[in-house]
Amino acid sequence: MIARTPRFSGVVPPVVTPLTDDGAVDVASLERVVGHLIGGGVDGLFALGSSGEVAYLTDEQQETVLDVVVKAAGGQVPVLAGAIETTTNKVLERARTAVARGASAVVTTAPFYTRTHPTEIDRHFRTVAAAIEVPVLAYDIPVCVHSKLSRQLVGALAADGVLAGVKDSSGDDVTFRQLILDTRDVPDFALLTGHEVVVDAMLLGGAHGSVPGLGNVDPHGYRRLHDAAARGDWTAARAEQDRLARLFDIVAVADPATASGTASGLGAFKTALTLLGVIARNTVSPPMRPLTDAETGRIGAILEQAGLR
Amino acid sequence: MIARTPRFSGVVPPVVTPLTDDGAVDVASLERVVGHLIGGGVDGLFALGSSGEVAYLTDEQQETVLDVVVKAAGGQVPVLAGAIETTTNKVLERARTAVARGASAVVTTAPFYTRTHPTEIDRHFRTVAAAIEVPVLAYDIPVCVHSKLSRQLVGALAADGVLAGVKDSSGDDVTFRQLILDTRDVPDFALLTGHEVVVDAMLLGGAHGSVPGLGNVDPHGYRRLHDAAARGDWTAARAEQDRLARLFDIVAVADPATASGTASGLGAFKTALTLLGVIARNTVSPPMRPLTDAETGRIGAILEQAGLR
Amino acid sequence: MIARTPRFSGVVPPVVTPLTDDGAVDVASLERVVGHLIGGGVDGLFALGSSGEVAYLTDEQQETVLDVVVKAAGGQVPVLAGAIETTTNKVLERARTAVARGASAVVTTAPFYTRTHPTEIDRHFRTVAAAIEVPVLAYDIPVCVHSKLSRQLVGALAADGVLAGVKDSSGDDVTFRQLILDTRDVPDFALLTGHEVVVDAMLLGGAHGSVPGLGNVDPHGYRRLHDAAARGDWTAARAEQDRLARLFDIVAVADPATASGTASGLGAFKTALTLLGVIARNTVSPPMRPLTDAETGRIGAILEQAGLR
Amino acid sequence: MIARTPRFSGVVPPVVTPLTDDGAVDVASLERVVGHLIGGGVDGLFALGSSGEVAYLTDEQQETVLDVVVKAAGGQVPVLAGAIETTTNKVLERARTAVARGASAVVTTAPFYTRTHPTEIDRHFRTVAAAIEVPVLAYDIPVCVHSKLSRQLVGALAADGVLAGVKDSSGDDVTFRQLILDTRDVPDFALLTGHEVVVDAMLLGGAHGSVPGLGNVDPHGYRRLHDAAARGDWTAARAEQDRLARLFDIVAVADPATASGTASGLGAFKTALTLLGVIARNTVSPPMRPLTDAETGRIGAILEQAGLR
Repeated sequence: MIARTPRFSGVVPPVVTPLTDDGAVDVASLERVVGHLIGGGVDGLFALGSSGEVAYLTDEQQETVLDVVVKAAGGQVPVLAGAIETTTNKVLERARTAVARGASAVVTTAPFYTRTHPTEIDRHFRTVAAAIEVPVLAYDIPVCVHSKLSRQLVGALAADGVLAGVKDSSGDDVTFRQLILDTRDVPDFALLTGHEVVVDAMLLGGAHGSVPGLGNVDPHGYRRLHDAAARGDWTAARAEQDRLARLFDIVAVADPATASGTASGLGAFKTALTLLGVIARNTVSPPMRPLTDAETGRIGAILEQAGLR
Repeated sequence: MIARTPRFSGVVPPVVTPLTDDGAVDVASLERVVGHLIGGGVDGLFALGSSGEVAYLTDEQQETVLDVVVKAAGGQVPVLAGAIETTTNKVLERARTAVARGASAVVTTAPFYTRTHPTEIDRHFRTVAAAIEVPVLAYDIPVCVHSKLSRQLVGALAADGVLAGVKDSSGDDVTFRQLILDTRDVPDFALLTGHEVVVDAMLLGGAHGSVPGLGNVDPHGYRRLHDAAARGDWTAARAEQDRLARLFDIVAVADPATASGTASGLGAFKTALTLLGVIARNTVSPPMRPLTDAETGRIGAILEQAGLR
Repeated sequence: MIARTPRFSGVVPPVVTPLTDDGAVDVASLERVVGHLIGGGVDGLFALGSSGEVAYLTDEQQETVLDVVVKAAGGQVPVLAGAIETTTNKVLERARTAVARGASAVVTTAPFYTRTHPTEIDRHFRTVAAAIEVPVLAYDIPVCVHSKLSRQLVGALAADGVLAGVKDSSGDDVTFRQLILDTRDVPDFALLTGHEVVVDAMLLGGAHGSVPGLGNVDPHGYRRLHDAAARGDWTAARAEQDRLARLFDIVAVADPATASGTASGLGAFKTALTLLGVIARNTVSPPMRPLTDAETGRIGAILEQAGLR
Repeated sequence: MIARTPRFSGVVPPVVTPLTDDGAVDVASLERVVGHLIGGGVDGLFALGSSGEVAYLTDEQQETVLDVVVKAAGGQVPVLAGAIETTTNKVLERARTAVARGASAVVTTAPFYTRTHPTEIDRHFRTVAAAIEVPVLAYDIPVCVHSKLSRQLVGALAADGVLAGVKDSSGDDVTFRQLILDTRDVPDFALLTGHEVVVDAMLLGGAHGSVPGLGNVDPHGYRRLHDAAARGDWTAARAEQDRLARLFDIVAVADPATASGTASGLGAFKTALTLLGVIARNTVSPPMRPLTDAETGRIGAILEQAGLR
């Protein structure tokens, strides 16, 4: 059904960044996360994405993360690296560092913080892509960037070979579907959904892969989901997706009176990985708070219902 | 795969409202639209929705529309009627009128124009549902109403029997999927997607029906899509959806320098129906402008590509 | 300092709409509100504005309100009437009714609920203005309408004699100031601020008047503020404004866990007027809730601090 | 009228960052900008603000800017430095660097890119303030950060001595006025408006200073405006403000079809400074485009009308 398989496709989880009690990157835990994911059958790793807490990590921490992930991956799967900065020159610095440290591709957003313009976004991606030696994917995440990449802009950048794909966290499945159709004939252009709850539906529509934050917790589940879709068994894909959708309820456990959506979601992934014995603790970066014991208990219960404990 | 079939399900297009040159409801054309849709195999009709130009029609025009649609439908399919007003008392007036004129159900949004609150939205739906004798469906359309119905609120209203369903035009497919799971055990609760480009994907996820504006133009296409999904032939469903997604490009034909998205979309549906000989002209309500001859030509070309001419 | 005095200028409060326990217009209380305002020295009355609960009143209720206000005003001050509906034809119905019932001017917004476009907004105001015999003022209230009237659009409509003024509730004081400069030479064009906390500042910048919801509670205060500004005594104007800013804290008394901003603000004005003996009760329209006894107590305390009790 | 004068008050322009043709910091031009501002009578300098292109400058460029400004200022006026990064740890890095290089105060925003929460924003400012030895001011700029600092949050941080002031670019003059009243008794707490078009009005309301981007172009004008306000000559203040409001039209010169609001505004300031002979060229950072010759001509004409050429 999917006529072509781009280089970056399949299950590509955005790797969480475990931290020590004092906020440093917990290298041993991060190595175990990579092992857990590759053991779960993923097709790639996306380091330094939103789920990787990239917006909270200093440059030095980001470099540590990338070194650990690239080394732990050991060439078994490609490592995509986020280069998330406000504008072009700052992105270029991070992107060059990522390439130097072994990233297979760089993922970057439109400019943010500053007000921007379609012509500037276009120039931004072209400048970044022209300056580095690995493929560039666009990260479409309006909830963070506060602008949406238009169908016209992505289509043109795909046709011109500037972008190798899009990681779509826009929630705009209509445009996502239209982009699949628009770029059908662009060799190796990858459309990856970031919405872990509708992966089956997006694969039916022609998506080439998923970047599920929840994949940190249950990589095997996403592996089974993708395999079912690939063989056309949509009944099985849907059943697996429904189970994963229930598991995704862990992101809504934290008390919204004291936690942002980011703290709630990141905290849930880390807490689940702690309960599963993959990472040492559920520390998150300031100014977020970690999940409490009571919240941890509720996450444990959801993991059990999903068959993970 | 879909364990239950709610009363309001399947293909339920939001019926466009043809107008005469001087802006009156074009009764003969509207009758032909209804015939075209029922002949196309639809399962229900949604009169006075956004695609029905409800926000542009006076009370008297709305009553004419409902009379014509109910009579032309002749009981062959249920007629859902939009009751779109800013707040509760005003909605009640429209809803009672709709029931008196034969609507099978009423579809209404959260309060708009005024700032609102979840407790007020909850009370709003409960008050409306308690006051009328037909089922009430919630219309979730943040692009118009500027608030999103939360999963918690809809879940509670479903469980309490206040709502009979949701017409989802929110673009938030994650919440839509979660609602499907949350209301799985609520008898006769219908989740209908308003996004004509991803109907196959939403049906895979468990949606009970679609409310496609584009269904005015090609009801047979949505009939085939739903039938393929119902028999589990997702390859056929996807192929039909891809064709319809291309056809949906008609909504982007109008020059955005002089037309709103509403004018562009409504104008396209009406222009296509004119070209197909169903309605007499593509007049839209003030302050929108109709599509030009050049734009009409481009729509004709898209209809041909989609095999409709 | 203010070179010219447009017809609609000075203190023009948006008149609240008192309700009986069963939600009908409380005619006797409304007559007392009008007397209270005219006795307080206001220069005009704005009936059926947002503070007048217009979005909650049925057509029949709106007509009652206008009849009562026009009659009670008795020609002592002009009565501006809101014609707040989603689009042009519906606005025209309300506007014509308002003129027939004695309104001196009509105040209307850009289209809402529907997506709109600058060219459509322009056509909307021109169509309304051409169809009625009294002046039309634009109501710029993005928090309700979700679009902002641009400087270019208002400037053109002022220059062409389409609009007689703007009631600005946009919170965009920069554009408001620029509009004052842009329309300096347009005879009789009125720029009225709807922000009761910065009236002194806006008058310094050249505003011709204010439309303060809080003016329902303390018309004398706004009278003194305007008079001080008119004679160039900015120290006195500022002191009066500071007192009124403190009084405005009544709008933040209601518990935000159960009241929208609208319920909190409208409820506060009505509760204060009840405590002052002007209206009989603080009932608000569904789906809003009235302020509680505890909240009423806090409002009473603020009234005392402001010297009103 | 202003009972107290906080340490950071008066005219504090956000210093633009001149660039060479190849995008490096143009040190000589930047030195001239500082001289131009101090010569114009400003009370402080805000380096690395939005008008300083901070979101476009690499860490190294930012350090160069700060070194040049601190040295050129030579202790004549305090230098405030922006520390604009997505979250706490990253802000801390920039803030410590700024202190080490001689900044008198640090200005920082709420977290951005990531979704955030009031409790997190509160913790963010407290963490930053506790970690550095100079005062911290909050930068309230929702157009960039996409959250608004609430009256409650700022009031608490002021009362607790965490914040030394607010640089308000929120456009929410109502909350700004309320904050002035709320913090009236907090020693040395500064409320500075970032809206160059309404400085007279904000000073009337009790603001302690302004941070006008346009002050780069005409520091003398803002000096005169502040001085008039300080002596209570509001007629003169208003006249000067009106002239400056007209001058501010330079920010709307660039063709919006190819320039963002940021490119248009920053480009205008730099172009004006080029025409005035202060800086060498109007280069802006990628992905923005510089203003064209035609646009430069229009800016020249506006400068003439304002009496600057």
